[in-house]
Amino acid sequence: MPIVDLNCDMGEGFGVYSIGNDAEMLEIVTSANIACGFHGGDPIIIHQTLTLAAANNVQAGAHPSLFDLWGFGRRPILGERPADIEKQVIYQIGALQALAHSIGTRLRHVKTHGSLGNMAAEDADLAEAVARAVRAVDPQLIFVALPGMETERAAERLRLRVAREIYADRAYADNGNLASRKLEGAVIHDPDLAASRVVQMIEDQAITTLSGRRIPVKIDSVCVHGDTPGAVAMARKVRAALVAQGCEIRPMAHIVAG
Amino acid sequence: MPIVDLNCDMGEGFGVYSIGNDAEMLEIVTSANIACGFHGGDPIIIHQTLTLAAANNVQAGAHPSLFDLWGFGRRPILGERPADIEKQVIYQIGALQALAHSIGTRLRHVKTHGSLGNMAAEDADLAEAVARAVRAVDPQLIFVALPGMETERAAERLRLRVAREIYADRAYADNGNLASRKLEGAVIHDPDLAASRVVQMIEDQAITTLSGRRIPVKIDSVCVHGDTPGAVAMARKVRAALVAQGCEIRPMAHIVAG
Amino acid sequence: MPIVDLNCDMGEGFGVYSIGNDAEMLEIVTSANIACGFHGGDPIIIHQTLTLAAANNVQAGAHPSLFDLWGFGRRPILGERPADIEKQVIYQIGALQALAHSIGTRLRHVKTHGSLGNMAAEDADLAEAVARAVRAVDPQLIFVALPGMETERAAERLRLRVAREIYADRAYADNGNLASRKLEGAVIHDPDLAASRVVQMIEDQAITTLSGRRIPVKIDSVCVHGDTPGAVAMARKVRAALVAQGCEIRPMAHIVAG
Amino acid sequence: MPIVDLNCDMGEGFGVYSIGNDAEMLEIVTSANIACGFHGGDPIIIHQTLTLAAANNVQAGAHPSLFDLWGFGRRPILGERPADIEKQVIYQIGALQALAHSIGTRLRHVKTHGSLGNMAAEDADLAEAVARAVRAVDPQLIFVALPGMETERAAERLRLRVAREIYADRAYADNGNLASRKLEGAVIHDPDLAASRVVQMIEDQAITTLSGRRIPVKIDSVCVHGDTPGAVAMARKVRAALVAQGCEIRPMAHIVAG
Repeated sequence: MPIVDLNCDMGEGFGVYSIGNDAEMLEIVTSANIACGFHGGDPIIIHQTLTLAAANNVQAGAHPSLFDLWGFGRRPILGERPADIEKQVIYQIGALQALAHSIGTRLRHVKTHGSLGNMAAEDADLAEAVARAVRAVDPQLIFVALPGMETERAAERLRLRVAREIYADRAYADNGNLASRKLEGAVIHDPDLAASRVVQMIEDQAITTLSGRRIPVKIDSVCVHGDTPGAVAMARKVRAALVAQGCEIRPMAHIVAG
Repeated sequence: MPIVDLNCDMGEGFGVYSIGNDAEMLEIVTSANIACGFHGGDPIIIHQTLTLAAANNVQAGAHPSLFDLWGFGRRPILGERPADIEKQVIYQIGALQALAHSIGTRLRHVKTHGSLGNMAAEDADLAEAVARAVRAVDPQLIFVALPGMETERAAERLRLRVAREIYADRAYADNGNLASRKLEGAVIHDPDLAASRVVQMIEDQAITTLSGRRIPVKIDSVCVHGDTPGAVAMARKVRAALVAQGCEIRPMAHIVAG
Repeated sequence: MPIVDLNCDMGEGFGVYSIGNDAEMLEIVTSANIACGFHGGDPIIIHQTLTLAAANNVQAGAHPSLFDLWGFGRRPILGERPADIEKQVIYQIGALQALAHSIGTRLRHVKTHGSLGNMAAEDADLAEAVARAVRAVDPQLIFVALPGMETERAAERLRLRVAREIYADRAYADNGNLASRKLEGAVIHDPDLAASRVVQMIEDQAITTLSGRRIPVKIDSVCVHGDTPGAVAMARKVRAALVAQGCEIRPMAHIVAG
Repeated sequence: MPIVDLNCDMGEGFGVYSIGNDAEMLEIVTSANIACGFHGGDPIIIHQTLTLAAANNVQAGAHPSLFDLWGFGRRPILGERPADIEKQVIYQIGALQALAHSIGTRLRHVKTHGSLGNMAAEDADLAEAVARAVRAVDPQLIFVALPGMETERAAERLRLRVAREIYADRAYADNGNLASRKLEGAVIHDPDLAASRVVQMIEDQAITTLSGRRIPVKIDSVCVHGDTPGAVAMARKVRAALVAQGCEIRPMAHIVAG
């Protein structure tokens, strides 16, 4: 009987701005990827999200990004040296870690956001820079990676604990990376379709790309989103479908060897 | 024979912008207050400053600020709850601490910057919020405070290690706080005057305010600045005058009981 | 039969963040105060809001703020010289004006946002700095001011066209300024109460403060908000009540002498 | 006898940060490209730079950028639609224009900064978006473009006045664009070499690329920089060499047909 984690990005507001339905998503998922202030999030929101996650027995992780509030971390920003990205990621995890510590909880994982994640998935040097950042802050942190991509390989080379994740609502490119949001069909809006895809990928232990290519992968976690209309309903369907399939839903720290 | 620390704000540039003569000041001082990104500083500059401080055997501390890059943290920003400032300070110390950890060094102290420092010196709730932030990250961190002000009292109430500092180049208001930079005579530009004032204050273990009031204080550290023309020359004079007077110059961690 | 304008703040999102129900509010109001990027708004959102306002025959104005995205322009930031605020306001109006011009429309008014408005209402120098900024960009622009406050007096001294506005959902302090949002009862949430207060103020041509003081004022415009739950419903009620009372609802440029 | 303009980027500080020697450069050049707040610059600095330029009889232009203060506008940021860049450029020129107007001066030209310039030089859609932005604000504005690149072609298609510029201190790639700063030899530090290259390019009415390719171009203006050590000395040498060669140094508005 497979065990999987459900993870979701959270705390991505800024000041008076809010985005996503964190309170509801925290009733559904087992791991929360908390924005660190570089694409969203601020110390007040981080504190509040960490507190809410702890109250819901949801495990907290850092969700570091390129420094790009206006672009919500989704724009590819070129010209940064991996060694400099490393420092930015350390800064973000450290800030979140201290806030977690201040409320008596702790971080369990790190998952890169947006363009940082997309770029690291395909760039071995960048992936390794991020992995070094994770290890530098706490070698027990789990690195959440796309299976088959450079992030997974970097985590393995650095002997980090790694959680391989699939996306409920995103289609895949042929190299195993997420298909660009700009492509037709790249984002799945139908909750039933998302749920059945997830069940299929778990059963197959494989992903299928937009062009039909099948890539075998290990799956530890399923990413659901909370910031689109219908997101909560989709997440509930995904969870229910997994449970109906006999999956146990548990935080990734219970799945990934320590 | 008195022992005093010399501290200086550092790493206050941002991106391509730089300010101050960190490399030279690190040859003079024993403690570096490193900007955390809220009024200046960024992960790359923080990393570089921490590395340079370690290479010079200068002890590193965090220099948290209100979130105000444009105003360089010098503008009073009202309307924030102390509990929210606390989270902002934890965020900043945590970010710096993780970067320090990543290069094998550690933070020894925390000193508030600009308006945050000025406001906390006179507001007991805010001072205590900052002290709680320091304690939350690491109870061994030394809290650098103006003697006689609310920050000193908050540090004592929370049983933090506290270093009392005087300023070489700033005049004092009658309540013991720094006189506003806008007042005539508030900033001292003459290196010899600054040096002789410091020696006098150390000898007297007292500060003298703009109006001539004398306030007895304990002095553990002397703050010198690195970001004005002639700053390096002034710092050298202050250090030389202290040494000539028989003072031993040592990092604050050697002075303040642990 | 009195003629009044209905104005509403708009375009206050940033990047992926949105706030308020601009599309619906544009069916209700006659003047849109468009954020200029300093507390919210960005060039893409400004362009979109100007376009939408024009399509709804709603007149566009600039809604300049202190430079404080994180605080949404609501935090008092001290220590700025009025002459420097003036430059910030010119910058913002100019940016918006150029975008308006690029889509074949034009700005009709300027209304200060948040703390800038609150501070200018009580500070004659600051009020005059803002008025000078308005005049510098275009002397035909209408300056929206709280009646009885320094902004109204500054507008009159500089011979600007001025629209006096009342707030549907905010209580008044005894000096005629808006009561602080932190005070009990300062923000009115009941649509019926808001509507009946507005009708009363228009009938009386006076405002009544929290303590019961009555201040006679001239009223050209009524401000309704779009960024709270129930805001649209409240705005509709206010408009309906004004129409039921026999008021004609027209853009402020039709009311204020040119 | 050729007539050329000398242009320089200016006003690129932010808050307390300053960069470059604007006061000295204004004694050397005839056109100032003033940062608009997106990569550097703020309303106070813009006002001061416009005032200083006017006092030196140096003509003022806008120097718009991608929105990237941290990266000083030098990082390629992908994923923006040209139509959205257009709005950002209109915003920036409009803001600067209003400040120029407020001190009784006016903008004469627009020159893109950093990555925006590099990207527009090679991307016809982006180049045309910038050219549309210039035209939307004021069709009399001169568009400063790299000769032979997409920006020049876009300016011509839109019938804008265009000034073709060469760089004193930058080497050229084979496509006629500036060589990346990261390439060996891409930035010229020797003032004499810079001066003799400029004289040669003016004489030849051609640029020579890093690989030795010769590209005939029309040259209306020479860009000198003010933000590196030795920049002022280099600019003086370039000017002196041009004068010695018999060139007349005049603002671009006197060179480019109106």
